[in-house]
Amino acid sequence: MKASIITIGDEILIGQIVDTNSVYLAKELDLLGFEVSEIITISDKKESIEKAMSSQMGQVDLVIMTGGLGPTKDDVTKKVFCDFFEDHLVIDEQVLAHVTTLIENYFKRPISEVNKQQALVPSTSTVLFNTVGTAPGMLMQKNNTTFVSFPGVPLEMKTIFSEQLVPYIKDHFKGVFNIHKTIITYGIGESLLAEYLEDWENNLPSDIKLAYLPSPGKVRLRLSSRGSNQDFLSQSIEMQIDRMPESVKAYIRAYEDIDFPEIIIKELQIRNKTISFAESCTGGRLAVMFNAKPGSSAYFKGGMVCYATESKVNILGVNQDTINKYTVVSEEVAMEMAEQARLKFNSDYAIATTGNAGPSKGDSDVEVGTVCIGIATPIGVFTKKYELGQPREKVINSAIAKGLELIYNEILKK
Amino acid sequence: MKASIITIGDEILIGQIVDTNSVYLAKELDLLGFEVSEIITISDKKESIEKAMSSQMGQVDLVIMTGGLGPTKDDVTKKVFCDFFEDHLVIDEQVLAHVTTLIENYFKRPISEVNKQQALVPSTSTVLFNTVGTAPGMLMQKNNTTFVSFPGVPLEMKTIFSEQLVPYIKDHFKGVFNIHKTIITYGIGESLLAEYLEDWENNLPSDIKLAYLPSPGKVRLRLSSRGSNQDFLSQSIEMQIDRMPESVKAYIRAYEDIDFPEIIIKELQIRNKTISFAESCTGGRLAVMFNAKPGSSAYFKGGMVCYATESKVNILGVNQDTINKYTVVSEEVAMEMAEQARLKFNSDYAIATTGNAGPSKGDSDVEVGTVCIGIATPIGVFTKKYELGQPREKVINSAIAKGLELIYNEILKK
Repeated sequence: MKASIITIGDEILIGQIVDTNSVYLAKELDLLGFEVSEIITISDKKESIEKAMSSQMGQVDLVIMTGGLGPTKDDVTKKVFCDFFEDHLVIDEQVLAHVTTLIENYFKRPISEVNKQQALVPSTSTVLFNTVGTAPGMLMQKNNTTFVSFPGVPLEMKTIFSEQLVPYIKDHFKGVFNIHKTIITYGIGESLLAEYLEDWENNLPSDIKLAYLPSPGKVRLRLSSRGSNQDFLSQSIEMQIDRMPESVKAYIRAYEDIDFPEIIIKELQIRNKTISFAESCTGGRLAVMFNAKPGSSAYFKGGMVCYATESKVNILGVNQDTINKYTVVSEEVAMEMAEQARLKFNSDYAIATTGNAGPSKGDSDVEVGTVCIGIATPIGVFTKKYELGQPREKVINSAIAKGLELIYNEILKK
Repeated sequence: MKASIITIGDEILIGQIVDTNSVYLAKELDLLGFEVSEIITISDKKESIEKAMSSQMGQVDLVIMTGGLGPTKDDVTKKVFCDFFEDHLVIDEQVLAHVTTLIENYFKRPISEVNKQQALVPSTSTVLFNTVGTAPGMLMQKNNTTFVSFPGVPLEMKTIFSEQLVPYIKDHFKGVFNIHKTIITYGIGESLLAEYLEDWENNLPSDIKLAYLPSPGKVRLRLSSRGSNQDFLSQSIEMQIDRMPESVKAYIRAYEDIDFPEIIIKELQIRNKTISFAESCTGGRLAVMFNAKPGSSAYFKGGMVCYATESKVNILGVNQDTINKYTVVSEEVAMEMAEQARLKFNSDYAIATTGNAGPSKGDSDVEVGTVCIGIATPIGVFTKKYELGQPREKVINSAIAKGLELIYNEILKK
């Protein structure tokens, strides 16, 4: 069971937008047991679409195409479908009725000629009804390959995929499973990890594949297998993980693909503890990370983005004398910020950040890239000072990573 | 001047990570005058890489490949390069010296065998030195196509690209220019916009291409042209924009590809005004949007993420009686939140959000999807109440969009 994804859109080829549709489709197809062999992004020119469709026909079982289905002149996928499958367009009455209602209810105006054209579909296609938008999906077959076309708007694509295509796939494709297990390590580089794992890796069964996914401070190890017996696949991967050398296990922070805030949130939940933030140079990013999930009010109390120096004093309650004496980017100020956040938000833990992310100097005379982090816990407060270099984005991300590392170790102590 | 991008990595094909490298490369290549004809994501299997390279050879002038260059066993690009160009690997002494220093300084240990292998490159390749990591880039040619291979770590890829490849491209490829001009409209749907623009669009010169990029509440219109005379291209696009119908101009919020927070920031800067936030259901996202750029302290005063009800009272200063009487998700509380934020942060404007993003009911009895927004300005405070449906992510994003719309209109009044 092989699949490929074709994304149509000049806006991706010139780097104007990020292609999140492919990420979603790749993940879902993987869950459904497909091996995605290629993701291809092409221009919305007729020739490009035809060439990409031809290149996949007979090579894979399923081709999912997104984009090029809107009401405007730059959308051409439907015409290409007609040529490719030697078909012609006809009005689908159910789609027309749906588009008419949608336009009348939402825009309070009668349906236009442009809108009517959205109800046109190739006469032999299976229409995949779009309950949340005007452009329907279409499904057609040629040379043992099923081609599906979706509109490019993410919400519409996802809705048609899950409501219409998933049931179709379950009916028409046999059960093969992809099993992935991701392990998160922190504080060890990819090369050293590979050295520690060398013997273990050489002894992995040939049907289990190992991949390294490094990112700053962290390496994800992914073990993958594929077959028809889901339980057996899972068990054989688990067995290999048990056999990993202890030297590597010491660096493992999670046995699932979650990020550091989620790892910390789990530890807070286990202990029934709460956290808050006082952020200057990280500008609220820590707070956002800790309230992304529903139910976050159980462990996330709140945060202050005290960007202007006056707000550190007036709202958070940092002593003006401390700022005058040590400047606003100092361990002394970071300490008071963390202390005050913990007190004011009535939380068990607090992280405070103050620093100069650059590119130029701000309210303080410290070097660009200097960040002080304050950590408040039920047993005390401490601070660390870092020189995190440049550019700005790297300073902010490193400050977040350092803050998370520090608080994680404190939470584990209790 | 055509180019294509090949991204190597199973992690993208299973949807585990978003391919941000391609977005960066597509944008940069476009700026350098290339027409990017395809972006292809493939598995790190030898056959897949060879097949993708063959499919591009002779078709485009430049192929940029990322991934598959790390120190670990799952990285195979270098071997494929040797086969494809009928070459063999040799140690590059300069790279070896650099890797040795990097490992010794950073990990405080001698270089390992695995690390040494990073200094291996095909004997006839042009080495693109990596100043920020261990794996170098490589450049080789075959059948009029230049193939470049970069490591997949974004920072390393970007550094080698800008430090090493850009000068090479400027030396070896002739000056063609891509000109894009993006216009942002809010509050009009893609279909109606297309109707209003029909005559104008039909009269566009054939060398100017128009594209519609719809997203919730907003449509971006992109005009593109390509040629050797940069000034002429820009002028002829500008001339067409001037000729747009007035019915469309009324919906235009910006004549460049910036997002709504940036549009508002410009208006604040023009007027020398400041803003602050009191966020409950939007969790700090508004604050993060307004401090993303350097120099934001000139217009961004700070924000409160008052997630827990107690923090709305204790820190922000909302009256407990107001909460008791009207519940925490109410226009009355939103009003006090906005007022207090504006006062406490000493800003000209403030946005406050309180709502239930769902999926289940929180500290309030209001329906899931209910959001109240408070807007404080130099001349007063007002609120709006919305029912934003589900899912959670949509409620949060819609609340942000509504808040931005409200404050934008207020700022323009002054």
